[in-house]
Amino acid sequence: MTRDMTSTQTRCSPAYDTVRLYGLGDLLREQRRSRPQRVAVVDAHHRFTFAQLDARVNRLVNVLRTHGVGENDRLLWLGQNSFRVMEVLLAAAKLGALLCPANWRMTAAEVTASIEDFQPKVVFWQEAEIGEAYRATRASWMDQHHWIQHDAEAGEPGGYETLLAAASDADADLQIDSEKPVLAIYTAAFDGRPNAALLSHTALLLQGMINVQGQEIHESSAYLVSGPMFHVGVLMGTLATFLAGGRCVFVPRVDAKQLLDLVVAERITHGFLTLPTVEQMRALNRDGAYDVSSLFPTPDMRDWKLPMVMPVTAPLMKTFGGYGQTEIGGLSVLTWMGGSAAGRPAPFLQIMIADEDGKEVPPNQVGEICARGPLVMCGYLHRDEENARRTRHGWHRTNDLGLRKDDGSLVFVGPRTTMIKTGLENVYPAEVEACLKRHPAVADACVIGVPDPTWSQNVKAIVLKRPGHDASEQELIDHCRERIASYKKPKSVSFADSLPRNAMGQIDRAAADALHGGGNYPKVG
Amino acid sequence: MTRDMTSTQTRCSPAYDTVRLYGLGDLLREQRRSRPQRVAVVDAHHRFTFAQLDARVNRLVNVLRTHGVGENDRLLWLGQNSFRVMEVLLAAAKLGALLCPANWRMTAAEVTASIEDFQPKVVFWQEAEIGEAYRATRASWMDQHHWIQHDAEAGEPGGYETLLAAASDADADLQIDSEKPVLAIYTAAFDGRPNAALLSHTALLLQGMINVQGQEIHESSAYLVSGPMFHVGVLMGTLATFLAGGRCVFVPRVDAKQLLDLVVAERITHGFLTLPTVEQMRALNRDGAYDVSSLFPTPDMRDWKLPMVMPVTAPLMKTFGGYGQTEIGGLSVLTWMGGSAAGRPAPFLQIMIADEDGKEVPPNQVGEICARGPLVMCGYLHRDEENARRTRHGWHRTNDLGLRKDDGSLVFVGPRTTMIKTGLENVYPAEVEACLKRHPAVADACVIGVPDPTWSQNVKAIVLKRPGHDASEQELIDHCRERIASYKKPKSVSFADSLPRNAMGQIDRAAADALHGGGNYPKVG
Repeated sequence: MTRDMTSTQTRCSPAYDTVRLYGLGDLLREQRRSRPQRVAVVDAHHRFTFAQLDARVNRLVNVLRTHGVGENDRLLWLGQNSFRVMEVLLAAAKLGALLCPANWRMTAAEVTASIEDFQPKVVFWQEAEIGEAYRATRASWMDQHHWIQHDAEAGEPGGYETLLAAASDADADLQIDSEKPVLAIYTAAFDGRPNAALLSHTALLLQGMINVQGQEIHESSAYLVSGPMFHVGVLMGTLATFLAGGRCVFVPRVDAKQLLDLVVAERITHGFLTLPTVEQMRALNRDGAYDVSSLFPTPDMRDWKLPMVMPVTAPLMKTFGGYGQTEIGGLSVLTWMGGSAAGRPAPFLQIMIADEDGKEVPPNQVGEICARGPLVMCGYLHRDEENARRTRHGWHRTNDLGLRKDDGSLVFVGPRTTMIKTGLENVYPAEVEACLKRHPAVADACVIGVPDPTWSQNVKAIVLKRPGHDASEQELIDHCRERIASYKKPKSVSFADSLPRNAMGQIDRAAADALHGGGNYPKVG
Repeated sequence: MTRDMTSTQTRCSPAYDTVRLYGLGDLLREQRRSRPQRVAVVDAHHRFTFAQLDARVNRLVNVLRTHGVGENDRLLWLGQNSFRVMEVLLAAAKLGALLCPANWRMTAAEVTASIEDFQPKVVFWQEAEIGEAYRATRASWMDQHHWIQHDAEAGEPGGYETLLAAASDADADLQIDSEKPVLAIYTAAFDGRPNAALLSHTALLLQGMINVQGQEIHESSAYLVSGPMFHVGVLMGTLATFLAGGRCVFVPRVDAKQLLDLVVAERITHGFLTLPTVEQMRALNRDGAYDVSSLFPTPDMRDWKLPMVMPVTAPLMKTFGGYGQTEIGGLSVLTWMGGSAAGRPAPFLQIMIADEDGKEVPPNQVGEICARGPLVMCGYLHRDEENARRTRHGWHRTNDLGLRKDDGSLVFVGPRTTMIKTGLENVYPAEVEACLKRHPAVADACVIGVPDPTWSQNVKAIVLKRPGHDASEQELIDHCRERIASYKKPKSVSFADSLPRNAMGQIDRAAADALHGGGNYPKVG
């Protein structure tokens, strides 16, 4: 499936190549011109219009330039949610630099590891709540990077606001290649450590447009940035609101009482809330004292639905759901694009289901989900070998299994990395489970590998029967033999009354192994 | 405003640069996978699904390759509307080639001129209705290009369908730079002859996404391609429908009776109709015999509104209106983006109002509308000097005048090429007219240049007074002197009862000159 290479491709007028550039910094410039007086960000007592935000970002750019930050340099955010994450991201965009919003719940050792991997030129840090946890880390790295405290008191030397106040607000107006990465998100610990997926200006802007449409975000929308900004889903909602000219309302972390106050005060229309948080808010608002009608149509907050609120929990993802991963710009296969299954790819995304050799497989057959197009990441930072391996067939291999239904919509089957080795063959539990579930008597199934001295592992199925239906072990094995390669069929089937599941509703495979004798899994590359 | 040039910019993994490509041909490939069984195009007795369309386009690509068509080669469409325009465009996209849909109402001499300018490798021509008009042209060019008759009888040697039937439907899967032009539209006869604006894959795809949102086009939409396909507005509606996975229903030309039949048969939801056509349809449907409810909510067809129908006539452009030109990808400043005036730029478009030196002017001041971003064309074909002149300040200069209101929304003032030369100074009537109209006594105004032996021209205003208001000539001259540069103020003011206007409602400047002594205009470059 590798594409033919063609000769050098001329465009048209070289002058127009420059004119046609458009990065995240250009979006900010246009918002300054198009919506100078509209409020862009709200955070505690801070409230800035697009014109003010652009001026502040220009000041930050000029501060960073005096610290030698230029193209391809890296900036690390080591704090909770703040409008300043947006400012640093937009400054990185104007500089051609790269921002990583770190997970502030990391241990000091994890922070050290990510600093070593990311090699930031400047670290933005926070004293409140989390300053203590990273004090030793800061001390040991202080001489190798520049550290700027974003929540320092106004006037404090070297603090974020002090530096901005002293800088020029002139726009440096650098010419930035919009296919370059601007955002790094640590994810995908496929080799035991998280890897930074690098997302380009174009990927973020396109995802913004897609979310504007799918979540129905307008100029008058107010988005509650209440999920962690190191999560691609939260960032995309935030950027979509920024792109539509709406207001982003930041909270440092989730507090049901504070969220209710903000919904009322800012007439919040969109947000990123998990189901438990909504339940807490509902309990606090039992007497209807908070007017939450901008976000929840009725006072009992029972009829709230997506796309107003984008939760990470399972039941509601059915409405605003689909398939995605950080590496393809977040949720990019979308149920609202139609079809009978998990949806269809957004514009600017191609999806192909391929076998191990990169050859496309027919509909209804499980293979690896592969992606192309500008929503796809620019690669993992400092992982040349993995990048080459992942793109070896001219597509980004997601490490996830899926299939196309006859109507072309996509079914996400499961992670490819949960793999059983039997003889020389690889068996993906998700594929066998999907096959078992097509049997009328099977309500649910979990497939594990049990150690075998000869074959390394054997395939074993744990099956939950559908009430009123019955099937024998042999019948289910035969069912699979007829539908998938023989080496994939379960060698044994156990029947159970329940399957272990985690808080996200996914099968807890470690617990299933412990309960049913699984083990001896291969290392998956 | 020229941007600083920065050093060579590295992206990330070179392997991912290739993976991230996505052109118009890739959209077709994804539709084949995502919506194999949905109908993509309808045209008379032809009806093809996305899977069939992709196979036909692959056949056409393979036909064109045997004729030596490759990257940067040009294809000319010399026929009326047809689903085959889409096929040739998509084949050009897969080849990295360029399609120009010519205006089939051109004279033979104009066709010759455009063939000389465009230098097509292959010309797709049509016998029905327009074959006779271009017979001599074909004869004289037959040896220099390959001519394929798209409406030849099936089986006729060398005819479109015959060639496709004999070709392989294997996808050549070439790697195409999506920033390259794929569509050429002749427009902008600023030097007396039309010039071909070249639009990239990315520009077309982004405009498709914008129109999907603004015109509310869905997978279940049916778009009546009833406007000429050499017009960017028609092409954009067509591509938006293709992108959303909807059906495009083609008619060779506008016939009210046929359109009514199609609205009923295909449950048309969108289209490109002019107001006179809608009036004809309404007259034919006086008795309500046609069920046009999919397009017009009530039987009398009086409450039809945009974005269901996108007319080119003025009154309805207020709903789905804005500012645009082919060179910035069509209508790209949109009223539905909000603001008090003609709207705001779409995402991926930057607009700046600049003076002659490329310096940004403040809000409420008239200047030239300048554009940046991937919606902007790649330049005019074979017009290096004009391309350099237009981009001399790092932006595409539109040759149109406009201003920003305080709320950031854009006002289109008028074409810059209507210019008066007084002494060494350039005066744009649109700017002076805008100034005059801010006077309470002025209902309307037209500014012309009258010949002057010393100054080349003098500025003269023709003013229509607002009923119940009065103002003297001197008062209006003083009004202007206080607000714009003195050389721009009218030297004389005539009062009139009406201003000559054309069918589009715009001031007919030639008629105004004839009535009020205008003349001796400079050549504008």
